[in-house]
Amino acid sequence: MPSGRICGLAVKDVRFPTSLEQHGSDAMHTDPDYSAAYVIIETDSGTRGFGLTFTVGKGTEIVVCAVQALRPLVLGKTLDDITADFRSFYRLLTSDGQMRWVGPEKGVIHLATAAVLNAVWDLWARAEGKPVWKLLVDMTPEQLVSCIDFRYISDALTDQEALDILRKGQESKQQREEQMMIEGYPAYTTSCAWLGYPDQQLTQLCSQALADGWTAFKVKVGADLDDDIRRCRLIRQMIGPEKILMIDANQRWDVGEAVAWVTRLSEFQPLWIEEPTSPDDILGHAHISKALAPLGIGVASGEQCHNRVMFKQFFLGRPRSMLMASKFNGVCELVQHLILFDYICVSGSLEKRMCEYVDHLHEHFKNPTIIHNAHYMPPMAPGFSSEMVESSVEKHTFPQGEVWRTVNQL
Amino acid sequence: MPSGRICGLAVKDVRFPTSLEQHGSDAMHTDPDYSAAYVIIETDSGTRGFGLTFTVGKGTEIVVCAVQALRPLVLGKTLDDITADFRSFYRLLTSDGQMRWVGPEKGVIHLATAAVLNAVWDLWARAEGKPVWKLLVDMTPEQLVSCIDFRYISDALTDQEALDILRKGQESKQQREEQMMIEGYPAYTTSCAWLGYPDQQLTQLCSQALADGWTAFKVKVGADLDDDIRRCRLIRQMIGPEKILMIDANQRWDVGEAVAWVTRLSEFQPLWIEEPTSPDDILGHAHISKALAPLGIGVASGEQCHNRVMFKQFFLGRPRSMLMASKFNGVCELVQHLILFDYICVSGSLEKRMCEYVDHLHEHFKNPTIIHNAHYMPPMAPGFSSEMVESSVEKHTFPQGEVWRTVNQL
Repeated sequence: MPSGRICGLAVKDVRFPTSLEQHGSDAMHTDPDYSAAYVIIETDSGTRGFGLTFTVGKGTEIVVCAVQALRPLVLGKTLDDITADFRSFYRLLTSDGQMRWVGPEKGVIHLATAAVLNAVWDLWARAEGKPVWKLLVDMTPEQLVSCIDFRYISDALTDQEALDILRKGQESKQQREEQMMIEGYPAYTTSCAWLGYPDQQLTQLCSQALADGWTAFKVKVGADLDDDIRRCRLIRQMIGPEKILMIDANQRWDVGEAVAWVTRLSEFQPLWIEEPTSPDDILGHAHISKALAPLGIGVASGEQCHNRVMFKQFFLGRPRSMLMASKFNGVCELVQHLILFDYICVSGSLEKRMCEYVDHLHEHFKNPTIIHNAHYMPPMAPGFSSEMVESSVEKHTFPQGEVWRTVNQL
Repeated sequence: MPSGRICGLAVKDVRFPTSLEQHGSDAMHTDPDYSAAYVIIETDSGTRGFGLTFTVGKGTEIVVCAVQALRPLVLGKTLDDITADFRSFYRLLTSDGQMRWVGPEKGVIHLATAAVLNAVWDLWARAEGKPVWKLLVDMTPEQLVSCIDFRYISDALTDQEALDILRKGQESKQQREEQMMIEGYPAYTTSCAWLGYPDQQLTQLCSQALADGWTAFKVKVGADLDDDIRRCRLIRQMIGPEKILMIDANQRWDVGEAVAWVTRLSEFQPLWIEEPTSPDDILGHAHISKALAPLGIGVASGEQCHNRVMFKQFFLGRPRSMLMASKFNGVCELVQHLILFDYICVSGSLEKRMCEYVDHLHEHFKNPTIIHNAHYMPPMAPGFSSEMVESSVEKHTFPQGEVWRTVNQL
């Protein structure tokens, strides 16, 4: 079917007042209102694509402004123009001779780029009648590599090396796809232990999560050591010694402080500490990782890793077993597509792999995630699962939506 | 005198159509329109402070939007509130629990923060009746350290270590200040060899610069190797073997490509190659630096180094002889204050130190830089030299200013 020409790109500032109940709160983001710059692209044949970038409230309007700045680069193109040379389309969005200065490939402009790219992937997958993960799984290694901009990463990964990895990933992919359809992809939950939750709420949510079959739990830490000890002890006692506990400081510490603090929490046997310090600190993460290795505690990062050049450096020194992925800053709905693709066509392994799950706001999506027994079940609707319910968008548009008119009267 | 309370913060999108004549052009920014998000803060006692962040055209409106988002954090404060605890003021602007997500401390939001901070420094220096460099020079080490946020850098530099460096810098500072008043700070010129200039223009500008006493010249490279060889040869022949030639690729290459390309240009004895690859690539820069060391070519970076965490990593492994400075993304008018302070109170050395000079648009500033014999002469007017001529701002405001109405009719 003809894909049509992109004739419209709208962007909305959508915010949910989650801070009122401390959902999502951590040591650095104490009052997050889960939000998104929400992009809708439209073609003259009437098809639409939806994309978003996750934010936490104030500042979303800046991302919206940046999406508007990117609009002229997208309007007038057909989906065929874009997909025939996706690498050049990425380069077009990220390397404009004037606009790249306010990045390059980082911060607001890159969040905006991600929202636009997500919408294009959604449009593409819908045109093919497939969910995004399946679109990726069905591509040849050559097609996949043609979508990636290797600028600045060729010293770590050339397109030829990526091709080799992806060709190897084609072996038995059918089998892994069938496995995913039955079992789903393993997940862990972050929803029991946001920093702002009182102990009673922690206990209640953890108890419910155990009943629901969850086996891995993330706890927010970093604001107060005594609180952290008490909360980690509580969770560890509830889940027992075998289940997995992870901790997340959301960039709260300096390098030395991170080592000292996590050492104090080591008795609770966390699998990893996430974002112990600045997401920009490659050498600092390496130092922390080395210092915590004897305690059996890993270091996780990437949530705010701003581009492939940073990912490259975090990976260097480890075996190049992973194809570096562009950041799709997003929510569970979007991320599930990428981990499915990773398992089926890239890593081929579930060992020590889990995907975060946050149990909020799914009701605002047309095709919300489906969790069975603590596993993401592959979404089957065409697209990126990124379309939001229209009435939700309308109510939560900031600042004029109904919800915000009410909140602001409180 | 009472400094008053900040009651207004205005921000303007000011752009100069420099791309029409290829001023400022390089391998990645082929059509730059030199621009700024220009901030004016006003107190209720009628004093004003002016600040700006440099941009190159499109995207400036996003920085303007980000400045507007920061406005509520500034309004209502007195200069005394701010200067009594400048570190906390910096933290307030950069660590808002919602807004930091769209950075943190990088890209658009950090450019906006810089514009606001520059305006506050301007206001502060005017209140003291001093140029910013002199305000800094007259501060005690304790006062200076109280202005710096050491979060994320304490593993490389603690406040105590910074104090020690600054205390040492107080020795003979009077003498260095007097020296600067007489000699000025050594500069090099970038204005002869923008990438888009034809050879004839190169020759003419270089010849004029030699007559004006310049001894160090930067050449833009990276788009085409044959062009680079021809242009570097031309400049080297004109300036002779003793004068300094530097080259600047503005992030054009991958790591391996950078080494190969610069090796081909080594016959022209460049002092350094600036921004050979992504500004985020700490490990890549280290690799290039090691590979080029045997050729006697250094690697320079920092123009788009986005925060102190990145600077820390670029410095690690070298002697900690330098106090890490926050980035004041700016123009010659602003930068001159910082290098004067560095020489008088921090490094105390001019060895291998020069500051870039770009000979454009100075006429739009109330107190333009003064260059004597290829040296920056210390500015004496109170403030940060950041105030622009009002009629220039008006004419160049994008898109409604007179200049842009004319350009857009072309």
